[in-house]
Amino acid sequence: MTLTGFPLMVSQPHFPKLVRAKSPLVSSAPLRWGARSALERGPIVGTLTSRKRRNVIGTHGGSYSVYQALSVASGQLDPRHQPQLAHTEPLVNIAPNDAWGDPDRLVSLDPWGAKITEVFAPLLAQGYHLRPTIAITQAHLDMPEIQTAIAAGRLAMDGNIVKPNGSLQVTKIAIDPVWYLPGIAKRLGIDERSLRKALHEQTGGMFPEFLNRMDLKVWLPPIGNTTVYILGNAEDLKNPSCEVVFRVHDECNGSDVFGSDICTCRPYLIHGIEECAKAAQSGGVGIVAYFRKEGRALGEVTKFLVYNARKRQGDRADQYFERTECVAGVQDSRMQVLMPDVLHWLGVKRIDRLVSMSDHKYNAIVNSGIHVVKRIALPDALIPPDAWVEMEAKKAAGYYSETIPSPAHLKTVLGRPF
Amino acid sequence: MTLTGFPLMVSQPHFPKLVRAKSPLVSSAPLRWGARSALERGPIVGTLTSRKRRNVIGTHGGSYSVYQALSVASGQLDPRHQPQLAHTEPLVNIAPNDAWGDPDRLVSLDPWGAKITEVFAPLLAQGYHLRPTIAITQAHLDMPEIQTAIAAGRLAMDGNIVKPNGSLQVTKIAIDPVWYLPGIAKRLGIDERSLRKALHEQTGGMFPEFLNRMDLKVWLPPIGNTTVYILGNAEDLKNPSCEVVFRVHDECNGSDVFGSDICTCRPYLIHGIEECAKAAQSGGVGIVAYFRKEGRALGEVTKFLVYNARKRQGDRADQYFERTECVAGVQDSRMQVLMPDVLHWLGVKRIDRLVSMSDHKYNAIVNSGIHVVKRIALPDALIPPDAWVEMEAKKAAGYYSETIPSPAHLKTVLGRPF
Repeated sequence: MTLTGFPLMVSQPHFPKLVRAKSPLVSSAPLRWGARSALERGPIVGTLTSRKRRNVIGTHGGSYSVYQALSVASGQLDPRHQPQLAHTEPLVNIAPNDAWGDPDRLVSLDPWGAKITEVFAPLLAQGYHLRPTIAITQAHLDMPEIQTAIAAGRLAMDGNIVKPNGSLQVTKIAIDPVWYLPGIAKRLGIDERSLRKALHEQTGGMFPEFLNRMDLKVWLPPIGNTTVYILGNAEDLKNPSCEVVFRVHDECNGSDVFGSDICTCRPYLIHGIEECAKAAQSGGVGIVAYFRKEGRALGEVTKFLVYNARKRQGDRADQYFERTECVAGVQDSRMQVLMPDVLHWLGVKRIDRLVSMSDHKYNAIVNSGIHVVKRIALPDALIPPDAWVEMEAKKAAGYYSETIPSPAHLKTVLGRPF
Repeated sequence: MTLTGFPLMVSQPHFPKLVRAKSPLVSSAPLRWGARSALERGPIVGTLTSRKRRNVIGTHGGSYSVYQALSVASGQLDPRHQPQLAHTEPLVNIAPNDAWGDPDRLVSLDPWGAKITEVFAPLLAQGYHLRPTIAITQAHLDMPEIQTAIAAGRLAMDGNIVKPNGSLQVTKIAIDPVWYLPGIAKRLGIDERSLRKALHEQTGGMFPEFLNRMDLKVWLPPIGNTTVYILGNAEDLKNPSCEVVFRVHDECNGSDVFGSDICTCRPYLIHGIEECAKAAQSGGVGIVAYFRKEGRALGEVTKFLVYNARKRQGDRADQYFERTECVAGVQDSRMQVLMPDVLHWLGVKRIDRLVSMSDHKYNAIVNSGIHVVKRIALPDALIPPDAWVEMEAKKAAGYYSETIPSPAHLKTVLGRPF
């Protein structure tokens, strides 16, 4: 063990063998991922105040752990601070279901993450420093396009889901990532050791514990969180007859916030929210899951580089995916196989209307055991003119559509020059 | 050196002293941060293909390096992939200025990050694997509130900045973080070693190179990027007589995308964009900088926990900041002292209209040597009724305002129950 409390691997130049520290720390609070009850499973201990009890790699807050570290470094945050959790508890109860006790079903979030004060009360009383990885609150959303839908008569003001001022009543849930490494590896079809090696090497040497603490099976990765918006009564999800509408959406800041017209992201998100509101008004539940996977999880710098390459070479649907691959080496990094976790956490077994045309997302959902009744395409009228390059390219690649564009057609679908 | 290529600290249980690897790697491409020319400064080498040349801690892509690692792990991405950068170059030239050669002025981004293929061409020819950390493209933005501003006669369609269909012509820039650790430490008022120790410890042991590679002075942190939107001609920024309007905005996904009405984030962002458009129409330049610092860089889980604590205890302006501190241990983690870098990179020396009421942001900008002529408050008519708790609390804490609410008044400013 070093001064910092983190046992690092013994390193010997020119000695090409992994040598482990002789007495690796073993957490005094081991996790049993997928155990049926919270106390059997054990709490995620990712705080840094009592290191012997830590049972994960990394710490809380996703990528915001970096800012937390700066706050400590600059003396603004006491590293021993213990969150006061009174009154922060969920406003809506997401009840345990079978998936919570299935180590294969949930691998990228902690199902008990919102219930710390309830299920781990005895441990909190013993002085364990625990932090929720999930927070559940409620909000009113006021979106100009929803006001337009009301004015156009597409959406009624019922006073409950759609308020008299046109705002939407929602439950919203922030979920920080909690990755069970053996389960993540299984989803990706690789072995745990290869996953750990790649995570260590391909991040530039982040967390030697990937390699020298094989006993630590869970990682809190420094990435963005997921947000879930629920319209209607979330507790109805356990009722098998409840109609479920689902929009799965990966962040696209340029469109979602700024309305960039080169893609269909915000229009499809809004269409999904409108469908969710209608479902909730007729007694069902609408769910929007928003993942921080900007630019297909390749990031915004890569995305903008690709825009330039597309536009400069004459933006054509038949070369759409190739442009990304030339820059990034891969077309997509989103790992949709991890996405359905949020549905299983909520207890969803059937989606009546899936508001997404993505074959990757559809396949991930269906292969995880959830039945999809109907897929809802984005109406043509909502597609910005410059976004047809993307739309047609995606249809040709397997996107859900009644018509599949021919290779000859794809060459004729052109985007605007800058 | 270990199998992975990352030299890790020698670790000896119960031996409380930092022992360094005997022959630490020294990069064959050392950086001279703040050197006046790109070649003297040297390129950021954060790729993993030629490790001896690496001269930074971490790797490219910010938090998306994690997804990149998963892509490699699952065999979808060849780790030796070299980006094809032809045609990806900036559409607008951000020209070097004095700040680019000042190691204290820019500490959180690489000024040469968009110009890799231009300034490091000789090194690329020698086989260096380099990646841009900045990408500059152009876009058309179609925002419903801007259409409303046009319909209301507040904004004219000039055909250039505001197109005939009401969309805005912008230059947009994605900037990945590149942190010069001695400079970051100086900004935070601490020494480099304390910063490195806190970054290692408070992230749960991320990057032992913080401690055992003191020669590596630059870190590519796994956090979100910054996006800059420019209305008008960015190249005019070097002209001292050019009028500059600036909106600095920290991400608030709940409001920016979903229109949650508990805060003023999207309304103020839109107001800023409208002001930027007007400035551009009269020959000036409008700049919006969007930072991924969700929930004051405390993250969305913390934010939602705080919402619950606020609403359950009776949401009152006089207790607004206290609620955050109880949960997070700190009111704000955004480190605004790093924010002005983007302005200095662009060459901004004076802001004619600063569209922000934040005293933290104003002070950071002014203390960095930029003159602010006028501050633009958010018009009361744009403040959602439930957001007055936040607004009044911030005014009392130092937010820019003509009137400062009294302590007695703060107790009377109440939010909506859920």
